[in-house]
Amino acid sequence: MTKLSTGYEAYLDQMRRIADLKGAMSLLHWDQETYMPEKAAPFRSRQLATLAGLSHQFATDPSLERLVNELLSGDLELTSGQRMNLEETLREIRKSKKLSQAFIEKITETQSRAFQAWQEARKRREYQIFAPLLREMISLKREQCEVIGYEESPYNALLDDYERGMKVRQVKEIFQEVGQELVPFIRGILLQRKPKNDFFHGNFPHQKQWDFGIALLKSMHFDFRAGRQDLAAHPFSAGVSPHDIRLTTRINETDLSEMIWSCIHEGGHGLYEQGLRSEEYGLPSGEAVSYAIHESQSRLWENHVGRSEDFWTFHFPRLQATFPESLHHVSLQDFYRGMNRVEASYIRTSADELTYHLHVLLRFEIELALFEGEIEVEDLPSLWNSKMKSFLGLEVPDDSQGVLQDVHWSHGSFGYFPTYSLGSFYAAQFYAQAEKELPELSAQLRIGECLPLRRWLEEKIHRHGKYYSSSDLSREVTGETLSLKPFMNYARKKYGAIYSVG
Amino acid sequence: MTKLSTGYEAYLDQMRRIADLKGAMSLLHWDQETYMPEKAAPFRSRQLATLAGLSHQFATDPSLERLVNELLSGDLELTSGQRMNLEETLREIRKSKKLSQAFIEKITETQSRAFQAWQEARKRREYQIFAPLLREMISLKREQCEVIGYEESPYNALLDDYERGMKVRQVKEIFQEVGQELVPFIRGILLQRKPKNDFFHGNFPHQKQWDFGIALLKSMHFDFRAGRQDLAAHPFSAGVSPHDIRLTTRINETDLSEMIWSCIHEGGHGLYEQGLRSEEYGLPSGEAVSYAIHESQSRLWENHVGRSEDFWTFHFPRLQATFPESLHHVSLQDFYRGMNRVEASYIRTSADELTYHLHVLLRFEIELALFEGEIEVEDLPSLWNSKMKSFLGLEVPDDSQGVLQDVHWSHGSFGYFPTYSLGSFYAAQFYAQAEKELPELSAQLRIGECLPLRRWLEEKIHRHGKYYSSSDLSREVTGETLSLKPFMNYARKKYGAIYSVG
Repeated sequence: MTKLSTGYEAYLDQMRRIADLKGAMSLLHWDQETYMPEKAAPFRSRQLATLAGLSHQFATDPSLERLVNELLSGDLELTSGQRMNLEETLREIRKSKKLSQAFIEKITETQSRAFQAWQEARKRREYQIFAPLLREMISLKREQCEVIGYEESPYNALLDDYERGMKVRQVKEIFQEVGQELVPFIRGILLQRKPKNDFFHGNFPHQKQWDFGIALLKSMHFDFRAGRQDLAAHPFSAGVSPHDIRLTTRINETDLSEMIWSCIHEGGHGLYEQGLRSEEYGLPSGEAVSYAIHESQSRLWENHVGRSEDFWTFHFPRLQATFPESLHHVSLQDFYRGMNRVEASYIRTSADELTYHLHVLLRFEIELALFEGEIEVEDLPSLWNSKMKSFLGLEVPDDSQGVLQDVHWSHGSFGYFPTYSLGSFYAAQFYAQAEKELPELSAQLRIGECLPLRRWLEEKIHRHGKYYSSSDLSREVTGETLSLKPFMNYARKKYGAIYSVG
Repeated sequence: MTKLSTGYEAYLDQMRRIADLKGAMSLLHWDQETYMPEKAAPFRSRQLATLAGLSHQFATDPSLERLVNELLSGDLELTSGQRMNLEETLREIRKSKKLSQAFIEKITETQSRAFQAWQEARKRREYQIFAPLLREMISLKREQCEVIGYEESPYNALLDDYERGMKVRQVKEIFQEVGQELVPFIRGILLQRKPKNDFFHGNFPHQKQWDFGIALLKSMHFDFRAGRQDLAAHPFSAGVSPHDIRLTTRINETDLSEMIWSCIHEGGHGLYEQGLRSEEYGLPSGEAVSYAIHESQSRLWENHVGRSEDFWTFHFPRLQATFPESLHHVSLQDFYRGMNRVEASYIRTSADELTYHLHVLLRFEIELALFEGEIEVEDLPSLWNSKMKSFLGLEVPDDSQGVLQDVHWSHGSFGYFPTYSLGSFYAAQFYAQAEKELPELSAQLRIGECLPLRRWLEEKIHRHGKYYSSSDLSREVTGETLSLKPFMNYARKKYGAIYSVG
């Protein structure tokens, strides 16, 4: 073997061992939220902490750094893909090695305890059960920001974990645009008469919902030989390996909408994972670009496809046949308008696709204030409630529908929420491009044919892994970097028609 | 802290990290045989190999050996439990370190491939699909025997993995007794008219069987908050952590017996795992003594309890109520006699508790001949078939009912089968003692009360972990080391009554 191939093989081998550990962690997490018996929680925490510590240790192993440096600085002929992998790995090593293995184990173990406390607090609607763990978690994350380093705001160090290089300033800019463009548009809509959506409430037996959800995922060409779906209290998706993508959904027998759009949303995440190249296992080239791009895929399917009249032209008759009692009297038009009803609501995950961004903004402002030291953990519930009042005009009835609704803070995932909005805006931008390049897309969806769209996404986005950054990918695919414009165009056209506003 | 407590804490910490890795592996295995999507197999193989390699690396880490040696050789006051843990750990390190991490990864990875090939071979009834993998596996295990070292027979090195210190000579001795005592007894029975058991065949809907199985496990006091049951093609149990014990069962809608006795059998394994002390996590004192003792627990529940008239006095009316069509005309006596029907059959796992040992003997003789170099992989099917003919008078119709029926060889678990018979004989010995010490046992089982027995087993056997060796445990509990006598007494009494032989 040549020097390059020997060295690159050794690099591959080390990266894949790390991926094996991460895959095992992913399964432990998945199991924790699907099948794990309750008493197992403390042991699961330690198992996860041990694996996270090892994975961190291997990912920051000085011998790996040395090898990567040698491969990069030698006079070897690297392909652009190999160079990207090595550079990205080096960047990750330099960032990760600032954190000690003990710190990683501590934070992983705290995550599990905080998650347990959050579940309990939410069930009992008692913020005080969660508050001490949240305080611990924030203190660890503040420590992390200091160790990693940042300019201007510690929150920049957090954002970077989910969207490389993203700065508070940029997030503020885009939310300023949201304030100028989207908020007045929403105000106009909220003044209109709302379409009916009472048909989503009724009696929808578990098994029939389950089967319908699986059929939706199959129609999206999610590959069930390389993935599965299970139930979870808080739907999520997890990649255990390139051919092992786990989706979860939630079924509420009195509300059909939870299952439908959680299936399609997680399915979008799952298609991205299945679209990554398995031969790039363990390498940046086999990983998703960023959380925002990941979210662009879930929201593209959930909203642009899954809340379109085209998609339901095919699926609605099937849904009606599944639940004839509840839906026989509903027209496709009413169903379509109902699923796109815009209204102020408490829960982010079930919010419509417009007010959704106000939920994200609220969280962003709170997180920023927390990490910039302006507020403390005990201020959160009242701050949350006052923002809900000012953003959406709602009085929060209890913390389970307010500050305790999201799992993220128990995981220490501060800086994550903004990627939801960024992802939605990327989704609109990508979808507008797909519509240009696939002139038959609308007609295809109307006959239940999602394969051309899936293939387009795979070719344009999924298969590149981290080869491009978010911005470069956006430029490659659409010719432009992230902009709110395509989202506003989409919103104005769609909701203008539904609500007769513009 | 004192020197002892600091040193012992460090030892504890390292042992528990190894246990975390083993728990993760256990979940990866469990998932592989329950929920994993099919395409994931090659990645799962590597994940398991990586974790096995790491676990081996940590378990043989020279710093651990040094620490253990220091603790043992210093002038510290160790409790007898601490001393046992350290000595046992040292013994394991000395044995394990003879094998390289590369070897462990190789064998783990081969296990996964061999398992896939075995499944395929069994489905297609083509031994040749499995043969090359079996050859690879045997060659690795032969290498392992040479590296570990042995006296007299390489098979001694294999036996030692499952039953420490057990020798070919001892296994031969006990099977010689089996030949002298049990075989003529079985011959006598096989000449008698067989009790009817056709009522086990019929139409037993999946969900009703499932629910009944769960009820059986609950009546055995298996703790579902610290464990669960799922479906698997080949029932097994797995300990993911002390509070996370996974059982599996198989449901055949046309044969009720498969589910019932696989549930009770795996439940017996599960109770042992749940009875170990969770505060001894990661230490020999928190681990099962041996495979034979583990099997004694499953067979005690499966046969001594689960095939007793007492147990079914309570449960049979419930079973009848669950499947009235198939069972309303069956009396408890007929049901009891039917479940204890003795007959020559092809499949070990569904064999009655007497002929079962001939299945084990057949495998022991074949494995011994393989490892003593008297036969080769290509001889196995014909040798199997000729032994089935001579032991049980049966012509094997195809290899899926012959040489391909067991999963063990695909895992490389040579030397494991004898523990099934040893475990059964231990079970009889323990149960005879339980009957002496719990004079109300029979009456308790008749009213569905299994808790006193479960508690007795926990106190006498489970909670000691590896504190005693198999022989010492047997002596502690029953006053005697392993003997076939209690099993023969049990068999003569029970089957004498059913068959009027003696």
